[in-house]
Amino acid sequence: MKNIQQLTPKQIRNLIRKGKWDRPTAGLAMGYAQANLVILPRRYAFDFLLFCQRNPKPCPLLEVLEPGEFKTRFLSSDADIRTDIPRYNVYRKGKLEGRVKNIKSLWEKDLVTFLLGCSFSFEEAMLRSKIPVRHIEEGKNVPMFVTHIRCKSAGIFRGPMVVTMRPIPSDKITRAVQITSRYASVHGAPIHIGDPATIGIKNLKKPDFGDPVTIKKGEVPVFWACGVTPQVAVTKARPDLCITHAPGHMFISDLLNEELAIF
Amino acid sequence: MKNIQQLTPKQIRNLIRKGKWDRPTAGLAMGYAQANLVILPRRYAFDFLLFCQRNPKPCPLLEVLEPGEFKTRFLSSDADIRTDIPRYNVYRKGKLEGRVKNIKSLWEKDLVTFLLGCSFSFEEAMLRSKIPVRHIEEGKNVPMFVTHIRCKSAGIFRGPMVVTMRPIPSDKITRAVQITSRYASVHGAPIHIGDPATIGIKNLKKPDFGDPVTIKKGEVPVFWACGVTPQVAVTKARPDLCITHAPGHMFISDLLNEELAIF
Repeated sequence: MKNIQQLTPKQIRNLIRKGKWDRPTAGLAMGYAQANLVILPRRYAFDFLLFCQRNPKPCPLLEVLEPGEFKTRFLSSDADIRTDIPRYNVYRKGKLEGRVKNIKSLWEKDLVTFLLGCSFSFEEAMLRSKIPVRHIEEGKNVPMFVTHIRCKSAGIFRGPMVVTMRPIPSDKITRAVQITSRYASVHGAPIHIGDPATIGIKNLKKPDFGDPVTIKKGEVPVFWACGVTPQVAVTKARPDLCITHAPGHMFISDLLNEELAIF
Repeated sequence: MKNIQQLTPKQIRNLIRKGKWDRPTAGLAMGYAQANLVILPRRYAFDFLLFCQRNPKPCPLLEVLEPGEFKTRFLSSDADIRTDIPRYNVYRKGKLEGRVKNIKSLWEKDLVTFLLGCSFSFEEAMLRSKIPVRHIEEGKNVPMFVTHIRCKSAGIFRGPMVVTMRPIPSDKITRAVQITSRYASVHGAPIHIGDPATIGIKNLKKPDFGDPVTIKKGEVPVFWACGVTPQVAVTKARPDLCITHAPGHMFISDLLNEELAIF
């Protein structure tokens, strides 16, 4: 188990499926894309798919399964969405009911699974280009902020855009924009560069989620759309049932981050 | 009316709405994006939205309206989808029932409107870069071919990918790929370059739709995903009702083609 960093996505999913790994997935299967999970009953699925279509930067869809399907096709050929995620959050009417290690007993024929891209994918590309990723350097969770930017609503789903912040040296901002632009299916290019107040953020030292990070002299705060956005929209909509991954406990796919790049 | 080429999208939609223009829209409102139309009852909408999500190259969604909505928000702030398209095709159970100039009498509260990108947008960018667009030079409709590439199915929707073909001088292929890559929301980069047999096309002189065009010495056939693909999938699925634009009679939006470019 100490060598889990060396395992393939398939081997890691296998451990998770057997209940032998229930911790966060950051740093595992480097090079491979990880995905956020949202599961909703069929009656909410069109609205949520439409919400993602209208808000592709915070809600970049990697794969959507047919109602009742629990095997992925695109992200992996052998994954079972009911067992292959280390921890799940179960929400009823928008309230967290529990955190579980598999959802086999909760599975129903009308459940629709959405898998969304995650910024781990472009952070790896930033590091390769020697662009600092401060929260990784400092061993923290990325700082996240609720902005005053409204998402485009769709059916019952609406809410503010949540963003992540990474401090970037001013002479590397152009390169950071270029690199993350290639990864449109994992949040893509920044949505804002510079003054936090412009997008309704009052204090960079007090993130709404995650941890504050150091901003050094000569660095500019750069903001990317964040996968917490659809979670906030789903919680606000209070569907009868919603299952997500527990924060940081992602689905590990067989797709290389590089395969997600536009070109 | 002879100066229709000089009118704005809003002015042209106004003429169309009054029944004063029922002809094809190619060459109108140059610089502005035109869109394909598909309208389906709500019960088919999730499957079709999923089909588009899984097949973004042939089915690039520009805007999807809520059930019953007939006013666009993103593509225009004053358009009425029931009247602002020069001609509509009405299909029942996959069969063409009629061609009409507006669909006010057919409108129902559960109809969902999908507007999809069209290659007019990137052809304009090609011409600006001095890349020949043969069917425009020859005053023809673009040649379209049914390939043996299967789209990813979604619910009741499935079918082959249909492609357009443009002959490109071999020293301009790289540039043609680069330019069309920028327009991911209007079919984007080519899906195939070269030998037609590789994607199941037998005879370039006999397109399945549109007109054959001249391929000159030193030119290579280049293939892009085509918006006829979703129409074929919809026809095969035989929904109770489906309304589309009549071929060539598109929705003219207020969005500049340039606004659709990735960067």
